[in-house]
Amino acid sequence: MGGKAHSEVYAKESMLKAQKEKAGGGQGVLVGEYAFTRDKAKKDEAIKEISWLSLKPGDSIGYHPHTTNEDTYIIVSGTGVFKDKDGKDVPVKAGDVTIVRKGESHGLTATGTEPLVFIDVIAEQ
Amino acid sequence: MGGKAHSEVYAKESMLKAQKEKAGGGQGVLVGEYAFTRDKAKKDEAIKEISWLSLKPGDSIGYHPHTTNEDTYIIVSGTGVFKDKDGKDVPVKAGDVTIVRKGESHGLTATGTEPLVFIDVIAEQ
Repeated sequence: MGGKAHSEVYAKESMLKAQKEKAGGGQGVLVGEYAFTRDKAKKDEAIKEISWLSLKPGDSIGYHPHTTNEDTYIIVSGTGVFKDKDGKDVPVKAGDVTIVRKGESHGLTATGTEPLVFIDVIAEQ
Repeated sequence: MGGKAHSEVYAKESMLKAQKEKAGGGQGVLVGEYAFTRDKAKKDEAIKEISWLSLKPGDSIGYHPHTTNEDTYIIVSGTGVFKDKDGKDVPVKAGDVTIVRKGESHGLTATGTEPLVFIDVIAEQ
């Protein structure tokens, strides 16, 4: 994937657009706009990837593990159900923050009638 | 500062509210809602702090260095001017992503007529 890392300001309109089908083993399409992607990150930088993501109602990111890094979903609009590290389903809405640490798993499903829009930040020590 | 770290879902309404005057040597008040704060983070976790921040027009976070960690501002609404690691002023708007890496400095000033709302994620290796 593209997305120039290491510069300081990433304008929304110049982000790399990418769609992933059945992301993490989920349903439908994960629509993404990437400031930069983890394959461009330097080994000595903690923040590896930042993106704006969205899921249409019913679409999902499947439950998947993070074996080497941490991943936060910050909900900007819409509603969804977050599956946490223990496999528990937790309703989420605009403003809520979720995080998994190294070795944990998560998933996210859009519910309601509008797209679920969220920010994704991946970091690694 | 408070804010329970290590749990997985932080509901917006239960976040720790805090106001900082002249944050980073800036002007006015930085209004924050913190999912968790860096003083609660574990040494072996990369993501140290996540918050929703806002500045009223004219208010600012002063230009300040990050000597040990990285800091990303993700603009959710409003407009502002971001001062980058080279001291250059860059206009920012909803959707834009800014980041400074360890050893770099940044600042942010709200412009326009509505509050500048942004997400702040701090990470460290």
